[in-house]
Amino acid sequence: MDLVIRNGTVVTAGGTYAADIGIAEGKIAQIGGTFDAGLPALDASGLYVMPGGVDVHTHLDAADAGVHSADDFRTGTIAAACGGTTTVVDFCAQAHGQSLSDAIAFWDSKAEGAAAVDYGYHIIVTDMNESVFEELAGLPERGITSFKLFMAYRGTNMIDDVTLLRALDQARRSDALVMVHAENGDAADYLRDRFAAEGKTTPYYHALSRPPRVEAEATARALALAEIVDTPIYIVHLTCGEALDELIRAKRRGVRAYAETCTQYLYLTREDLARPDFEGAKFVFTPPARTEADHQILWDALANRTLDAISSDHCSWSFKDHKSRGRDDFRKIPNGAPGVEERLMMIYQGVNEGRITLCDFVDLVATRPARLFGMFPRKGTISVGADADLVLWDPEAECVIAQRDMHNAMDYSSYEGRKVKGMPRSVLLRGKLIVEDRNYIGTPGEGTFLRRDRFAARNRD
Amino acid sequence: MDLVIRNGTVVTAGGTYAADIGIAEGKIAQIGGTFDAGLPALDASGLYVMPGGVDVHTHLDAADAGVHSADDFRTGTIAAACGGTTTVVDFCAQAHGQSLSDAIAFWDSKAEGAAAVDYGYHIIVTDMNESVFEELAGLPERGITSFKLFMAYRGTNMIDDVTLLRALDQARRSDALVMVHAENGDAADYLRDRFAAEGKTTPYYHALSRPPRVEAEATARALALAEIVDTPIYIVHLTCGEALDELIRAKRRGVRAYAETCTQYLYLTREDLARPDFEGAKFVFTPPARTEADHQILWDALANRTLDAISSDHCSWSFKDHKSRGRDDFRKIPNGAPGVEERLMMIYQGVNEGRITLCDFVDLVATRPARLFGMFPRKGTISVGADADLVLWDPEAECVIAQRDMHNAMDYSSYEGRKVKGMPRSVLLRGKLIVEDRNYIGTPGEGTFLRRDRFAARNRD
Amino acid sequence: MDLVIRNGTVVTAGGTYAADIGIAEGKIAQIGGTFDAGLPALDASGLYVMPGGVDVHTHLDAADAGVHSADDFRTGTIAAACGGTTTVVDFCAQAHGQSLSDAIAFWDSKAEGAAAVDYGYHIIVTDMNESVFEELAGLPERGITSFKLFMAYRGTNMIDDVTLLRALDQARRSDALVMVHAENGDAADYLRDRFAAEGKTTPYYHALSRPPRVEAEATARALALAEIVDTPIYIVHLTCGEALDELIRAKRRGVRAYAETCTQYLYLTREDLARPDFEGAKFVFTPPARTEADHQILWDALANRTLDAISSDHCSWSFKDHKSRGRDDFRKIPNGAPGVEERLMMIYQGVNEGRITLCDFVDLVATRPARLFGMFPRKGTISVGADADLVLWDPEAECVIAQRDMHNAMDYSSYEGRKVKGMPRSVLLRGKLIVEDRNYIGTPGEGTFLRRDRFAARNRD
Amino acid sequence: MDLVIRNGTVVTAGGTYAADIGIAEGKIAQIGGTFDAGLPALDASGLYVMPGGVDVHTHLDAADAGVHSADDFRTGTIAAACGGTTTVVDFCAQAHGQSLSDAIAFWDSKAEGAAAVDYGYHIIVTDMNESVFEELAGLPERGITSFKLFMAYRGTNMIDDVTLLRALDQARRSDALVMVHAENGDAADYLRDRFAAEGKTTPYYHALSRPPRVEAEATARALALAEIVDTPIYIVHLTCGEALDELIRAKRRGVRAYAETCTQYLYLTREDLARPDFEGAKFVFTPPARTEADHQILWDALANRTLDAISSDHCSWSFKDHKSRGRDDFRKIPNGAPGVEERLMMIYQGVNEGRITLCDFVDLVATRPARLFGMFPRKGTISVGADADLVLWDPEAECVIAQRDMHNAMDYSSYEGRKVKGMPRSVLLRGKLIVEDRNYIGTPGEGTFLRRDRFAARNRD
Repeated sequence: MDLVIRNGTVVTAGGTYAADIGIAEGKIAQIGGTFDAGLPALDASGLYVMPGGVDVHTHLDAADAGVHSADDFRTGTIAAACGGTTTVVDFCAQAHGQSLSDAIAFWDSKAEGAAAVDYGYHIIVTDMNESVFEELAGLPERGITSFKLFMAYRGTNMIDDVTLLRALDQARRSDALVMVHAENGDAADYLRDRFAAEGKTTPYYHALSRPPRVEAEATARALALAEIVDTPIYIVHLTCGEALDELIRAKRRGVRAYAETCTQYLYLTREDLARPDFEGAKFVFTPPARTEADHQILWDALANRTLDAISSDHCSWSFKDHKSRGRDDFRKIPNGAPGVEERLMMIYQGVNEGRITLCDFVDLVATRPARLFGMFPRKGTISVGADADLVLWDPEAECVIAQRDMHNAMDYSSYEGRKVKGMPRSVLLRGKLIVEDRNYIGTPGEGTFLRRDRFAARNRD
Repeated sequence: MDLVIRNGTVVTAGGTYAADIGIAEGKIAQIGGTFDAGLPALDASGLYVMPGGVDVHTHLDAADAGVHSADDFRTGTIAAACGGTTTVVDFCAQAHGQSLSDAIAFWDSKAEGAAAVDYGYHIIVTDMNESVFEELAGLPERGITSFKLFMAYRGTNMIDDVTLLRALDQARRSDALVMVHAENGDAADYLRDRFAAEGKTTPYYHALSRPPRVEAEATARALALAEIVDTPIYIVHLTCGEALDELIRAKRRGVRAYAETCTQYLYLTREDLARPDFEGAKFVFTPPARTEADHQILWDALANRTLDAISSDHCSWSFKDHKSRGRDDFRKIPNGAPGVEERLMMIYQGVNEGRITLCDFVDLVATRPARLFGMFPRKGTISVGADADLVLWDPEAECVIAQRDMHNAMDYSSYEGRKVKGMPRSVLLRGKLIVEDRNYIGTPGEGTFLRRDRFAARNRD
Repeated sequence: MDLVIRNGTVVTAGGTYAADIGIAEGKIAQIGGTFDAGLPALDASGLYVMPGGVDVHTHLDAADAGVHSADDFRTGTIAAACGGTTTVVDFCAQAHGQSLSDAIAFWDSKAEGAAAVDYGYHIIVTDMNESVFEELAGLPERGITSFKLFMAYRGTNMIDDVTLLRALDQARRSDALVMVHAENGDAADYLRDRFAAEGKTTPYYHALSRPPRVEAEATARALALAEIVDTPIYIVHLTCGEALDELIRAKRRGVRAYAETCTQYLYLTREDLARPDFEGAKFVFTPPARTEADHQILWDALANRTLDAISSDHCSWSFKDHKSRGRDDFRKIPNGAPGVEERLMMIYQGVNEGRITLCDFVDLVATRPARLFGMFPRKGTISVGADADLVLWDPEAECVIAQRDMHNAMDYSSYEGRKVKGMPRSVLLRGKLIVEDRNYIGTPGEGTFLRRDRFAARNRD
Repeated sequence: MDLVIRNGTVVTAGGTYAADIGIAEGKIAQIGGTFDAGLPALDASGLYVMPGGVDVHTHLDAADAGVHSADDFRTGTIAAACGGTTTVVDFCAQAHGQSLSDAIAFWDSKAEGAAAVDYGYHIIVTDMNESVFEELAGLPERGITSFKLFMAYRGTNMIDDVTLLRALDQARRSDALVMVHAENGDAADYLRDRFAAEGKTTPYYHALSRPPRVEAEATARALALAEIVDTPIYIVHLTCGEALDELIRAKRRGVRAYAETCTQYLYLTREDLARPDFEGAKFVFTPPARTEADHQILWDALANRTLDAISSDHCSWSFKDHKSRGRDDFRKIPNGAPGVEERLMMIYQGVNEGRITLCDFVDLVATRPARLFGMFPRKGTISVGADADLVLWDPEAECVIAQRDMHNAMDYSSYEGRKVKGMPRSVLLRGKLIVEDRNYIGTPGEGTFLRRDRFAARNRD
C-alpha cells in the first residue's frame, strides 16, 4: 500500500459505511480490514471519503467568433480539482470544413501538459459529410465514444435533422452515445429578432426569446429521431418541466433516453437576467435559467432518478472583456457561465436541505455520468481496482461563495454571496494529493487523456 | 477473519470488480487486499459474488377462509434460501377485530424457530380504529416500519379511503412507509359478478374481470391520497402500462412514489389463464398477468429506474388441494402463486437477454428493496460492515425450471419447463453457508427477525 | 302566426344570420321569408335573437340540515327568466330511506304552480338498494333521464363506488346519463379536520381543504368506473386544469365523457375566500374557486370544445341567515352561491373579450346542455318546430351587476360590482313574453315539467 | 321563391327538424312556414336535406415530376358534385422560383370554365423569400386565406422551420390560417433509404418507412411553432393516436390547434399496402394508412370533437399509368389516392354504425370545414341567406362502391366492393339542380371562385 485513508466514512452511490481505504499504484486496493500502522496515511476523521467528481460537460479553452474564453485547460482543470472534480469530459469542436482528426489534434494541443485532472473528449459535429461520417465510425476506437450536436445556433453549430439522423445512425453502428443541445434554433432566432426589432435589447430578453417550448420542442424531436433510429440519446442541460415531460414520455415509449441538468438550473432564475447595471449579462447562457417552480421539478426528477447527472456546462466568458460586448444588444453577449469549481458545493446543499440523499449526490455528480460515458468503474466510484480519485469532504465546513476564492480565470461567479455548508478538504488524483484545503498543490499536466469505453446501455455491468 | 471468498467477481448495484472478501463475525470485514493463506475460504472462481436476494413481498403460512397455504415459514424460507434470497419481509395480517400486537405475536409464533433466512414483517391493516391507529404509531419502534393496505377484496381485506388516509397520516407522523395493493375492488367485483351471471366461470374470466383500468384507477387514487397527506407510498405488484402511467404522473408532480413489479408480470400473460384442463387456475393471482406488450413496458421501466424492485408475491395455494375448489367457478379459486425460489433465476434471464444490466439485477432484487424498507446497508449490498449474506452465482450454469427441484411444499411452478442460465451455487447467511449446489444445508430457525429502520426517503444516505 | 320577431339577427350554435321569425302555438314556425304586416310583432332591430338559456344545474328550494335555501322554485325561476334562462333542470334529492317516487312527488309539490320557466329533474341518489335500483330503471319513462351521485360529503350525500357502479350499470341499461359531483370526500374531510385541529377556521381554509387533487382524483375515478361499465358520464362543475387533464385522458381512451364548468370558476378565485369581515363566506361552495391560471385553462377548454356546458350551480344560502352560521368554523358554512340570473350576462363577457365566439356562447349556455340532457331540439336552438323560448339580447346594453337588481331572494351576488356589456332585453317562453327589460311580467306556474328524452350519445341526431 | 324543397327533414350540424325550404336567387330564403302551391318544387319525402359537402383538401389537376394527375378540375369537381360535395378548396402550388401571383394565375387557368362546383384555393408555399413573404400578406385580400406548408419531401415541397415560422408570422399579421403536412421528411427518407438498401422495395415498405412517430414528431413541432408565434394552425390528414396525442397536448396548453383526418384513415390499414400483385400501390399515400386501433381512436376523436373535419385528400394517380412506375421500387410510386366522390358515402357509414351522430356527420363534412376556412355561413349550413347548396340524401339507398360508377378519370377506387347505405339523391348548387340520381346534369364552368374570409378564431360568430 502506498497510502491509507483512515477513519473516514466511505460514501458511494451504493451506500455509506465506515472503512479505511488502502491505495496502491494509484488505485484502490483494499477497503476495510487492517493496515500496517507505519503506512503513509491521511486522517479522514469526521470526513466523507467520496469518489472525485466527474463533470461531463465543460467548455475549456473555447473560442467564439475569434475570441477565447478566460479559462484554458490549465486554469479550468485546476478550478475543477479545487472544487472536488477529478475528471472532466470537454467538448472538442469540429470547425466548419475541418476533419475530426484535426479537431482532436487541436484539442490535444490545448490539453496535453496543461490538465490538472484526467480528461476526455466528446466530439462536436458541425459539418457532416461522407468523410466525417466515416471518421465518426473510428472515434470509439480512439476512446472518444460520444458525439454532440446542436439543434440551435443557425449559421455556426446548428445542424439539421439529416445530420442528426446520420450521427445517430453512426452511433448505433459504433456503440457511441449522441448528445444533443436541444433548443429549436430557428424559433429562438425568430423571437430574438422580434424582440430586437421592438427595441428590446437588455439581457432579460435573452431569457424571453428562449422560452421552455423552444427547448421542449427540440427535446421531443431529438428523442423522436433517436426512437426512429433505435439508439440511445443523452440530452444535455435540461432545464424545465416542459422538456422533462418530453423525456418522460420518450422513456415511457421505451426510448433509451438519458439527461443531465446543470447547477445553474437548480439555483438561478429568469429574474437573474433582469439584474440592474447589466449584471444580468452574467447569467446569459442557453437554455436560460427558468423559475423556482422548475427548480423544484428538477430536484424531484433528480431524487426520483428521472434525470441522470448534474454537470457544470462551464464556459468562461468574463464580464469585463466578453459579456460587455452585448451591452447594447443582448444578441452579442457570448452565452455561457463558469461553474466547474462551484458544482459540488452547490449541489451538496440539496443534501443539506433534504432534497436528495448523500448517495444520490455522489451518483449524480460522479457515478452515473462515469457510467453513461464509459469511464466506470475506473472513475466515479470507490471499489477495488478503481482509480484512487478521492475527495475528502468536510460536511461541516462552511463558507460563502466568492469569486476571489475561485481558481479559474474569471471575474465573476454565478453564485457569489451564497452561503454553503460542506466543502472538499482534500482531493486525490490517482492516489496523489493535488488539493489541500482548497489550495491546488498538484502539477498541471499530470491529468491524462481518458480513453472511454463504448456505450452499450443494457449489456454493461 | 472467519472466512474468505476468493477469486470471485464482486457484483453490487454500484459496480462490478474483482476482489476477495473477508468475513468476520457474520459481517463483511474487508474487500480487496491480501488475506492469510491459511484462512478458511470458498473459491469463487468464475462466479459472481453478490448480495443475497431481498424479497419484500411474501405470504408465508397464509390463511384464507380457514385454509392454510402449502408453505409455512420453514418450507417458504428454505425455498427462498435455495433460490438465493436471504431476507424476506412477510405480511403479518391483522384479523378483523384483532389488535396489531396480537397479530404480530401470532406471526412470531409462525416464524420463530422455523425461518431459514432473516425476516421482517409489514403489517396488514384491515380494521382501523382509534386503538389500531395508536398501535400503528408504536410499530416503527418495534422494527415494523411499513403498513400494507388493500384497496380490493371487499368483505375481507378491503379498506376505504378514510382508512388509507389515516394509515398514511400515521405513517407520516412515525416515518413509516405505506404499501398498497392497488385494485378497485368494487369494480373488479362488478365485472366478476357480471361474468358469473353470464355463466362465464372459467379461470380466464378472472383476468377479464380485473382489467388494467381496475388497477390503474386504484393506483392513481392511492398516489393522490399520498400526495394529499404529503407522505411517501409504495405500490406493490404493478403490472401494466396503464398503472405505470399513473406512477409516472405522480412522480412528475413530486409525489415520493415507489413501486415494485413481480416476476410473474414479466413472463406470464393473460393467455396462461386460458390453459386447458383447468391448468389456467395455477395462474390465478391478483392483479392478473397481462400481455407481452406489458412485459416490454415493465422491463423498460425497470431498466430506466422508474420501477424500484421485483418481488415474488409468493403465495402457495396448491393446485390439487386449493385451486381445485374453484373448478366450477373462478371466484372460488384462491388467489396466488409461488415464486420465492424461482425469482432470481427468472429475473437473471433479463440480464442474459440484455434487458437490464447485471448491476440493475442486483439493485432490483436486493439493494433497492433493502433501502426502501430500512434494511440497508445491513442487507442488500456488499460493503464493509454489512451482513455477510452472499450468493455465489454461477452465470454459466443452466437448468430447466421444474417443480420437482423446488424446495417449497407446492405441487406446481408457474415457470415449469422454462430453460434458464445463471443459478446460485452457494448461499451464505451472515457468513454461514446454508445452501450448497441448491441443497439446503442450514438449520431452520437460524433466520432472525429484522428490526427495520424508519423510512425517511430523502434524508437517508 | 301568433307573433313575429322582426329585424333581428338570429344567433344559434350553428351560425348567425338576419331573418325574421314566425311563432305559432308556442313554437317556431317559420324562419325567413315574408310575414303579413298585420301580425303581432316584436322589433328586434339591433338585437340578437337567441334560444333561451338552459341551466342544467340548479338547486332550488334546497334544504340542508333542516334549513331551507333562500330561493324556492318561484323566486329561483323568476331570477332565471330575468337572466335569459327559460329552462332549468333541478336536482331532486332522495332523502335517506326515501323512495325515488316519494322524492319526485315532493319535488313536484315544490315546482308545480310555482315555476316561471320550464323545468326538469335530475335525481340525486343517496341511498342505493334493490328497490331504488329498480326504481331507477323506470325513471326514464317518466322523463327523468339523468342520475346524480356525490363522491363527497360522507354522512349525507356521499356514495361509495359500489353505488356509483350500480347507478352506471342501471343508466347503461336504461339509456340514462349519470352525473357526478367529483371530489374525494374523505380526502377533503381529512384536510378540513386537520386545518380545524390547527385552529384554522376562516373561510379561506375551505378552499385549502379541497385542493385540485381532491377533485382530480374523484374525476379520474368516476371516469374509470364509467369506462369499466362502458357507459357515458357527465362531470358537473369541473374547475381546474388537474381535473381537466383527467377528462381529456378519459376521452382519449374512448370514454364518452362530458363535463360542464360553472360561471364562478371562470371569474372567482381562491383569494375571494380570504376577503375580510367574513365576506369570504359568500364564496364558500364546492369545489372551491381556483386561480386565474385555471380561468384561462377553462376558457380554452370551452373554446376548443373539450368542455360541453356552463351551468350556474345556483344554490342560495343567504349571507345573513345561513353563511353566518359558520363564522367561527368554516365547516359550518353551508356550501353554495347564487348565479342563475347572472350566468348569461357573465359568460357573454367572454364573447366581448374574444375568448369564445358568439356561437360558442349559445352552444355552451343553451344548445349543448339541451342536447346532452334530452331536450333537443325542443329546447336550446332556433329551428322550425322548436319551442319558441327566445331571448332578445342587446349586445350594447351595459350595467353593473348588483344584488338589488336581482330577482332572487338572496342578499348578495358573487359578481357584485362587475361591469358587463350585453344583457337580455326580452324573454319569451313558448312564444309568450315573460320578461321585458329585465322585469318579470309572466305568471308563476306557467313553467311546465319537461319529460326529457333518454340519453343515447351516438345514435342521436 | 324560385324553388321549394318540400317534405324533407332538414339536417344541419345544429339539429334535425321537418321543414320545407324556399330558395330565391340561389340562396335559402325561408325555412318552414307555407309556400304557394304553384312554386317549382322538389319532393324530399323520406330524404334528408343537408348542406352540400365542403372538401377542403383536394389536389385536382396536380403535377408531379412532369406527370399530370388523372383528374383535372372538370372531372374532379364533377366527381365531387356526384358525391354530394358542392365546395372544394384545392391546393394551388407555388413552383420553385415562382411568384404566388403566377401560381394563382396558373391555377385560375385550370379551374375557370371547368369547375362543376364552387372552389377556393389554399396556397402551397415551397420557396419563401422576401417577395413571397410580402405576397402572402396580400393574399387574404384576394380571398385566399390559408397557406399550406410541407414538412416532408426534401428537395421538392419540404420547407424548414424558418419558413414555417415566417409563414405563421405572416398568417398572424394577416389573419390567415396555416395548414401543415406534418411528417418529418428527413426521418421518413432515412427509413425509406434504409429499407431500399436492404432490398425492401415493395409498397408495404412505404408504410413502414413512415411510422406514427414520423408524423407525431412533425405534428408536435408544427404545434410548438404555432404556439411560439402565437397563431392558430391546422393539421391536415392526421392519422393516428400518436399524432392525436400531440394535438390534444397542444390544445391543453391553449394552442388554437385544429385538425382534420381523411376518409382513408378511417377505413384502410397498413395491411392494404401488402395486397398482392402490386395492388398495394393503390394505397400508397402519405401519411400511410395505420391500424384498426387507430380507426377507433379517430372515430372517437371525431365524436368527441377533438378533430374538426374529414377531407378526401383526393389525388388521382392512376394505377396503370402512374402507380406502375414504382413496381420495382416503392420510392417511385406517386403518393395519393382518389376519394372526393366516395367521401360522404363512406363517412355516412359511421352514422349507420353509431360512431357519430347525423349532426356530427354534417358538421364534419361540411359545416366545420366551412367555418374554419372562412366560407361560413355562406357554405356549410342551411340557414336563411346561405347559398342554396343542398344535398337530398337518401338514408335508405344502398349500393356497392365500384370504380365504374365513379365520375372521376381514375381506374380504381380505394373502397371498391364496400357496401354502403345512404347516398345523395339530388344535389343543388346555389339553387340549381346539378346532380340527379348520381348523374351529373350541370354545366362545367358554373362553379365559381370563392373569396374566403380571413381566419379570426375567437372573434367570429
